[in-house]
Amino acid sequence: MKIGFLGFGEVASTLAEGLLSNGADVFTCVEGRSLKTKEIAEETALNLCKSNQELAESCDFLISAVTPSQAVKISKEVGKYVKGIYIDINNISPSTAEEALSHIENGKTADASIIGSVRKNGLNAHILVSGPCAKQFLELNQYGMNITVVGNEIGHASAIKLLRSSFTKGISALLFETLYSAYKMGIDEETLEYIAETEGGGFRESAVSRIISSAVHSRRRAEEMEEVIGLISKNSDAKMSKATGEFFKQIYGEINGIGKRPEDYKEIFEIMDNKNRKK
Amino acid sequence: MKIGFLGFGEVASTLAEGLLSNGADVFTCVEGRSLKTKEIAEETALNLCKSNQELAESCDFLISAVTPSQAVKISKEVGKYVKGIYIDINNISPSTAEEALSHIENGKTADASIIGSVRKNGLNAHILVSGPCAKQFLELNQYGMNITVVGNEIGHASAIKLLRSSFTKGISALLFETLYSAYKMGIDEETLEYIAETEGGGFRESAVSRIISSAVHSRRRAEEMEEVIGLISKNSDAKMSKATGEFFKQIYGEINGIGKRPEDYKEIFEIMDNKNRKK
Repeated sequence: MKIGFLGFGEVASTLAEGLLSNGADVFTCVEGRSLKTKEIAEETALNLCKSNQELAESCDFLISAVTPSQAVKISKEVGKYVKGIYIDINNISPSTAEEALSHIENGKTADASIIGSVRKNGLNAHILVSGPCAKQFLELNQYGMNITVVGNEIGHASAIKLLRSSFTKGISALLFETLYSAYKMGIDEETLEYIAETEGGGFRESAVSRIISSAVHSRRRAEEMEEVIGLISKNSDAKMSKATGEFFKQIYGEINGIGKRPEDYKEIFEIMDNKNRKK
Repeated sequence: MKIGFLGFGEVASTLAEGLLSNGADVFTCVEGRSLKTKEIAEETALNLCKSNQELAESCDFLISAVTPSQAVKISKEVGKYVKGIYIDINNISPSTAEEALSHIENGKTADASIIGSVRKNGLNAHILVSGPCAKQFLELNQYGMNITVVGNEIGHASAIKLLRSSFTKGISALLFETLYSAYKMGIDEETLEYIAETEGGGFRESAVSRIISSAVHSRRRAEEMEEVIGLISKNSDAKMSKATGEFFKQIYGEINGIGKRPEDYKEIFEIMDNKNRKK
């Protein structure tokens, strides 16, 4: 079975390496890519194609793992050459997935989303898949992948990932707002402790890490919320998602230039206080 | 040690009964109260005072457990007669607690908040206490109460309870919005399942119960959020709290008249869909 990758960044190279070590026949094309990408590809005993066209014509499964902004462009480029099944595994919204897959002329497509981290879990990272050829993609589980079918409509796998990440971003925003108020009153430790009484074990650690990561990644979170708001607005007025997006925009404005990852959430609150005093 | 209760509703009668059975000397006044309250008070071997003045003058600890709207009124009424320590255990905001306790002329006061449920846990319900006489209130733990000191400022105990309840209300609103979108796309079960992958065991059950209870109690939640917004607005612009409040107002508008407690969250979403179609 021939498995090809469009793009050869962290996701593609990690999955390719795992598939190779389990005996799969793996292909990619590195023409026009960076020297580093070429070196990685050559080191890992991959089959290298001369062009994306040749790659698309050779593979039983062609997995698109490019950067989100390139997902549509690459599917347009190879759409008429794809012989096997084309799977878009990029971190994109359901409507972008639909657009990308619409260019695959043979119609053999699936929309996939990685739940969790490829960096941490390697080939075993959980992948959800939906769309007309979702079931066929399960064949790759024989090489050690961890794929689950979640629906036969394109966009379902992406939507589940997006809704899940919207929920966790909302929790981070809620925690940040709640705990900042508590901190200003001098009762943040107690508030964390008594929320943990209902929310269960590990709450304090995860709360602190959510606040720090909200501050450090506020810009990206604000951008990602735009896609969530687009999705949720189809069925409701997305009050909570809009507030979450606005929250991260504001935090980015207030802590922008934080410089390093703080060790404690209180450092972030101190930075906010100092900035506000300077205003 | 003489312990008195102002008010004799569920909280007071449950605590009084527990304290009595552990050998405390418990007082209340039932003048002008309903027949049912009088019967309960008489059945439980309480010491009955003729007036709130007599009660205030007799007790070492006087606990105010009235309805939230009566908290200030009752402290004004007894303020000049209180001989011992006055504890406000009502479900009120930090600023209302401050106002109520300002009427106690001897200044021996504490602000207490019940975390969790007296109905479920009886005398063992966890109670937080703050303010000048918080430490003295701990003496009641010898009769089986479960009191923890959280600060010496009036309002801290109430603030912790309010922030905690605001956080959990926010999670309910986030869940409702996320899951309603998922339901409309036909992927609600999958979305619940994959959020549970990160959020841990018991997530599905608690999520479903939060959605149902959000719908059933939407009006009260919207009202309670007003107090939270007042508190959080002192230190930030309370984006998430305001969205949570607006969310519950809207849900109340959409599902008002739900009639009975539904068995499944999908019944609520169906009701919303039917109402929206009729509009």
